[in-house]
Amino acid sequence: MKIKSPLQIAREKYAPKVPAALKGSVKVVEGDKTQSVADQGEIEKMFPNTYGMPILSFEASDEKKNFPAMNVGVILSGGQAPGGHNVISGLFDGLKTLNSDSKLFGFLGGPSGLTDNEYKELTSDIIDEYRNTGGFDIIGSGRTKLEEESQFDQTLENCKKLDIKALVIIGGDDSNTNAAVLAEYFAAKNAGVQVIGVPKTIDGDLKTDMIETSFGFDTACKVYSELIGNIQRDANSAKKYYHFIKLMGRSASHIALECALQAQPNVAIISEEVEAKNMTLDQVVDQIVEVVVKRAEKGENFGVVLVPEGLVEFIPAMKALIAELNDMLAKYENEVNALDSNKERREFVAGKLSAESSKVFTGLPNSFANQLLLDRDPHGNVQVSMIDTEQLLSDMVKSRVKKLKKEGKFNGKFSGQSHFFGYEGRCAAPSNFDADYTYSLGRTAAVLIANGKTGYMASVRNLTAPADEWIAGGVPVTMLMNMERRHGAMKPVIQKALVKLDGKPFKTFAESRKEWGENTEFVYPGPIQYFGPTEVCDQTTKTLQLEK
Amino acid sequence: MKIKSPLQIAREKYAPKVPAALKGSVKVVEGDKTQSVADQGEIEKMFPNTYGMPILSFEASDEKKNFPAMNVGVILSGGQAPGGHNVISGLFDGLKTLNSDSKLFGFLGGPSGLTDNEYKELTSDIIDEYRNTGGFDIIGSGRTKLEEESQFDQTLENCKKLDIKALVIIGGDDSNTNAAVLAEYFAAKNAGVQVIGVPKTIDGDLKTDMIETSFGFDTACKVYSELIGNIQRDANSAKKYYHFIKLMGRSASHIALECALQAQPNVAIISEEVEAKNMTLDQVVDQIVEVVVKRAEKGENFGVVLVPEGLVEFIPAMKALIAELNDMLAKYENEVNALDSNKERREFVAGKLSAESSKVFTGLPNSFANQLLLDRDPHGNVQVSMIDTEQLLSDMVKSRVKKLKKEGKFNGKFSGQSHFFGYEGRCAAPSNFDADYTYSLGRTAAVLIANGKTGYMASVRNLTAPADEWIAGGVPVTMLMNMERRHGAMKPVIQKALVKLDGKPFKTFAESRKEWGENTEFVYPGPIQYFGPTEVCDQTTKTLQLEK
Repeated sequence: MKIKSPLQIAREKYAPKVPAALKGSVKVVEGDKTQSVADQGEIEKMFPNTYGMPILSFEASDEKKNFPAMNVGVILSGGQAPGGHNVISGLFDGLKTLNSDSKLFGFLGGPSGLTDNEYKELTSDIIDEYRNTGGFDIIGSGRTKLEEESQFDQTLENCKKLDIKALVIIGGDDSNTNAAVLAEYFAAKNAGVQVIGVPKTIDGDLKTDMIETSFGFDTACKVYSELIGNIQRDANSAKKYYHFIKLMGRSASHIALECALQAQPNVAIISEEVEAKNMTLDQVVDQIVEVVVKRAEKGENFGVVLVPEGLVEFIPAMKALIAELNDMLAKYENEVNALDSNKERREFVAGKLSAESSKVFTGLPNSFANQLLLDRDPHGNVQVSMIDTEQLLSDMVKSRVKKLKKEGKFNGKFSGQSHFFGYEGRCAAPSNFDADYTYSLGRTAAVLIANGKTGYMASVRNLTAPADEWIAGGVPVTMLMNMERRHGAMKPVIQKALVKLDGKPFKTFAESRKEWGENTEFVYPGPIQYFGPTEVCDQTTKTLQLEK
Repeated sequence: MKIKSPLQIAREKYAPKVPAALKGSVKVVEGDKTQSVADQGEIEKMFPNTYGMPILSFEASDEKKNFPAMNVGVILSGGQAPGGHNVISGLFDGLKTLNSDSKLFGFLGGPSGLTDNEYKELTSDIIDEYRNTGGFDIIGSGRTKLEEESQFDQTLENCKKLDIKALVIIGGDDSNTNAAVLAEYFAAKNAGVQVIGVPKTIDGDLKTDMIETSFGFDTACKVYSELIGNIQRDANSAKKYYHFIKLMGRSASHIALECALQAQPNVAIISEEVEAKNMTLDQVVDQIVEVVVKRAEKGENFGVVLVPEGLVEFIPAMKALIAELNDMLAKYENEVNALDSNKERREFVAGKLSAESSKVFTGLPNSFANQLLLDRDPHGNVQVSMIDTEQLLSDMVKSRVKKLKKEGKFNGKFSGQSHFFGYEGRCAAPSNFDADYTYSLGRTAAVLIANGKTGYMASVRNLTAPADEWIAGGVPVTMLMNMERRHGAMKPVIQKALVKLDGKPFKTFAESRKEWGENTEFVYPGPIQYFGPTEVCDQTTKTLQLEK
């Protein structure tokens, strides 16, 4: 017997809130023609059938339209994000509302399900088991990239077998880029299969004016902020540890920034700033040490430091070092492996690096330098994602304050604890916001499909207003694209949304951080609430509120 | 300006539920005389003034009694636990209800506040800021032990200065033991200061028939179970990792057991069972490998394994090894430090150990053996609390399945991730249960004080019933005591409540674990809810429900 927790049972009954326009018949209103964010000429040439389409918004309508029954396929692509199941239940309900004979097929295990024709029909029995739940387990996910024409042809063949007229691809920037390429390929071939994308990623780096946030970001940040708040309260009670907390999000620091805005820790490193200021690892450490010293002067020998997962790759000197190491370790693999001790290995490697990188390398704590040499992936590359940046910073701060103590410049104590939060938030049950937003995205995708659209991403905007006032519609994926170098060749891709240093969220943080650093201004967000007062249960992220 | 989260603001208004008997005038009913759990003769001799007192229970009464105003002191002792602030607010409200001129003084930073006379008066302005919040930051906590007569005399002197008639000591088994000794000392001297204990610890190892649970256990387990559930959902979605999750709780496995009952992971190691069965580390690994192999046969190469923090010390062979290492490293410190490489150090050490321990030591993964040699505290002892047991088990399972693969006995994949949850739960805002329970304990302590009691622990029982039906009263601390060897001498101490292998919670787990292991029967408890339906918000732990 399948056992459920009381909260699981209570949440099954939750009816997600949707924009007013999605409650009855929908009129699709066309806006202005669009352009890509950059490289318009090149992108237009590559997407002759799907470039320049207008922005779409939905309005409530009295007109009853009849839609033919149709079969639709859906996949989940890439890392989990809270709300994926609600996109699918929204899509299911949307299709059934338009024509109860329509069918939804879920392809299993991500994009490879499409090419391998692994699928199951999603019936209401199945859908009802997954409403408002976290995870991607309803059909699984995967990281196969849909990029080759042979994959596209295979996908088309499999769609034809099931008489599928439209595919919905729920994924991040890469998956939506591939969705756009697939849409264009099918349109060029007149294949009769539409493709619609849905913006997913807890990292928050898939956004524009039209895609105000990707789903899952809200819930994941709330889970991490709950934990950060709890640890802050512990730090402030025990008064003896500095907690270094690494947060998921390799290619942008939106999560660290949002959590900082929610919890007001003593330090939050923002990778984009580190890169923009061309900071060294030592300078990042300086920034933390300065806070530690200031707090010690007030007798406060505790605190919390947030570290974005991708930090090391944003430090220009570290990035250069890692690139050199990758080349060099490939070249001298046997020599390095033949050496007896880590010390000899470090010395050998330091002798082969450029003067600049050698200086950076020898300045690293030994344990970290060893990790760079030993933890390599099957291609011999340094595994950046396995670097314990939080531990590294803690160790470096420790040795720095020890030195300051000897010099009489530090009178406090320093003891570090490190944490990494990622898996704790990716599959949390969606907050009310994410449950509503994802369900609305699914309903939106159904309307786009019924109206024959392809190459669009489902879009629900005006998200800081009550759900009733949200604006549903579609955004041409090509509108988000520019040309970037990938694996040596220029490719059309969705531009990643990094933290903007002149944006309101970062500026708000930057204005307060001195005070948060020196004083103890911790905020305790607590766990996600589903049933309480609306200001507790339905507020979205600070990032979104500030960007509005 | 102090900023609060919307949930912090909403929770300020929560009025904790209390037993019916605490709502008006209280009649204190004496039950039977009591005996200590063991060593009655010795304990009675050591506590001539406070041994054998009756159990007390409170009943509602029509009789209005007048109580004189009195000054009371309170301390928080040891590790944080959710609800500590509510004990203090309950105590404050209780004292003020009995006589509005009574005063409450909080001694700062734990027991050392008592001896150093560091205190602040807790006024309603201060109390109101901390109602229903997590943490111990209202007055701080500390780990100083109150054991020496000189400390007792200093405490008495400081109490006299403030005209304090009673002390409330909020702490775990050690702190309550010391509270009893202090109560006896004051009683013997006719000092005029009563001492009341309050049972605190997230570890859940302070309990008897009369103390059904220590406060904080409920909230901490719920936070950990939320995270375990989220990680389980991730494991079941990504289908590629085994997550090894270490949980706080060194001296007992109640937390791991409760979380297992809540979330139904694939494996949960219970230290008490490992010790009772005299298992080796290899046998613990076997137990996990068996599940991994069975699941792989079904194509499920993912799962979740719970590991109690104290595991290594419960493995008899490891305990013996660590004891030998402590002696040996003290003796050969210089020789070991003079060696050049970890390999040489391991070989040197292995040669000096007993045959049995040497075998255990050389069977350990190198990185773990190195950790045992390198991470020592200032006294040269191996730091058991720093051992990454979760990583150790993951590494050992990995190498075992690799071997099985070579032998053709394992066809799956294995990839481990490790986590440690402790600080995430110790200072969480208390669940409704813990908020109600701790507030009631504080109110109970006030009644015990007003009625002249000393050497009692505040007790609130019948906790699986609605709060209205809870039974408040007092239990003589001596009732919980036996004689144990501490630092070479026999001492009267509160008997630690380990997981009982013949108790209902463990037996329930043991009956289901095969099924939970081979199948995927994850339950997702989700975050603590404060405002929803009562079955979601007010249920206490499975452990307590099963013990009833």
